[in-house]
Amino acid sequence: MLLVLVLLGVALLVAQQKSGKNSRLEYSKDGKLVLPKDYREWVFLSAGIGMTYNSDATPKTNPPFENVFVSPAAYREFMKTGAWPDKTVLFLEVRGSESRVSINKDGRVQTKIVAIEGHVKDSAKGGWAFYGFKDGAQEGTLFPKTAPCYSCHQENGATDTTFVQFYPTLIETAQKNHNYKETGH
Amino acid sequence: MLLVLVLLGVALLVAQQKSGKNSRLEYSKDGKLVLPKDYREWVFLSAGIGMTYNSDATPKTNPPFENVFVSPAAYREFMKTGAWPDKTVLFLEVRGSESRVSINKDGRVQTKIVAIEGHVKDSAKGGWAFYGFKDGAQEGTLFPKTAPCYSCHQENGATDTTFVQFYPTLIETAQKNHNYKETGH
Repeated sequence: MLLVLVLLGVALLVAQQKSGKNSRLEYSKDGKLVLPKDYREWVFLSAGIGMTYNSDATPKTNPPFENVFVSPAAYREFMKTGAWPDKTVLFLEVRGSESRVSINKDGRVQTKIVAIEGHVKDSAKGGWAFYGFKDGAQEGTLFPKTAPCYSCHQENGATDTTFVQFYPTLIETAQKNHNYKETGH
Repeated sequence: MLLVLVLLGVALLVAQQKSGKNSRLEYSKDGKLVLPKDYREWVFLSAGIGMTYNSDATPKTNPPFENVFVSPAAYREFMKTGAWPDKTVLFLEVRGSESRVSINKDGRVQTKIVAIEGHVKDSAKGGWAFYGFKDGAQEGTLFPKTAPCYSCHQENGATDTTFVQFYPTLIETAQKNHNYKETGH
C-alpha cells in the first residue's frame, strides 16, 4: 500500500510538471516572452470581431476575430479575488475570418492566425508589459513603454490595465471586489 | 522521505480529483446532462458569429457569438489521434453581441449567454447525442434523435459528426489521420 502511494506520488508529480511545464511565465535569455506551446489550452476569456477603438476607422469588410486566453492559475485567482496576481499572462490571438466555409451561409468563422500579442504582469520587470509575436515567431518582442497600447490600457482598462469590460465571465467578480472602472462613451 | 512522498501522493490525488470533479461526463438520475461548473475552463475550440446553414435566412442585425468548448482529456486525445474518444463532451455556448461597449467603436463584443447545448459521445447510450440547456438550466434535456441537428451533423460534420471544419486548431490533425470529410458548397 505504501509503495503504491509512493509510486502514485511520483507519477502524479511527473504528470503535473509535464502538463504545467508550458503554463508558466518564461523569457528567453535576451528577455523575449516565450509563447507557451499549450496557450490554446489556457482559459478562454472571450472573442471579439473587428473591434476598433478609433471612431474614424473604416468598418472592415473582412474583420478579424480576437481570441483572448489567460493562464489557468491567474484565472482561478481572479475568480476568487477579482484581481490579477503577479505573473499573470494574457494572450491575444488574432485570426482571419471567412463566411462561406463548408455549409455555412452567413455570419463568419475563424481561420488562420494573423497575429499574437502577450500582456504580462511581472513585478520583477516593473509591472505590466506587452509583447508582439510577428509572423509565427515563438518569442515575442517587448513593445516600448511609449507604445500607445500602454497608455490606452492604462486609461481604459476596467481592471488593472486589462479590458475586463470585454470578458463577460469576469465582470461581475471584478465589480463585487470593487476592482472595476466604468469606461468609454 | 517515504512519508513525504506518501503525503505528496495523497495531496496530489485529492487535488486532481478536486480539479477534475466537474470535468467528467455526468448525468442526473433522470438521464439529463449535467452542465459542468467549470466548462469555461475547458479547451476553447473556436468562436463563430451569426453562423447559419440556411441560405434563405435573413442576415442578423444583432448576430450571436457561438463559443465551442471541449473536455480537456478529449482534446488531448484528439491532438494525438485525430479522433474523439468515448465520453467526449462538447459545449456550444451562444452569447449575445454588442458593438459600442466601453471604448469599442466598431465590430462586436460578447455579452450574456443566450443558450447552451451539449454534444456527447457515449457508447453506453448508443453514440453521439445532443442536449439543450434552456434559460440557465444546469441540466440539459436530450434532443430526440429525429431532431434536425442529428441528420445535419451526420451529413456535414467533417469528423465523426462534429464540425471540425470550423475548429482551426483541429483540422490539420484530423486530415493527417485521414479522419476529415470535405463538406458543403
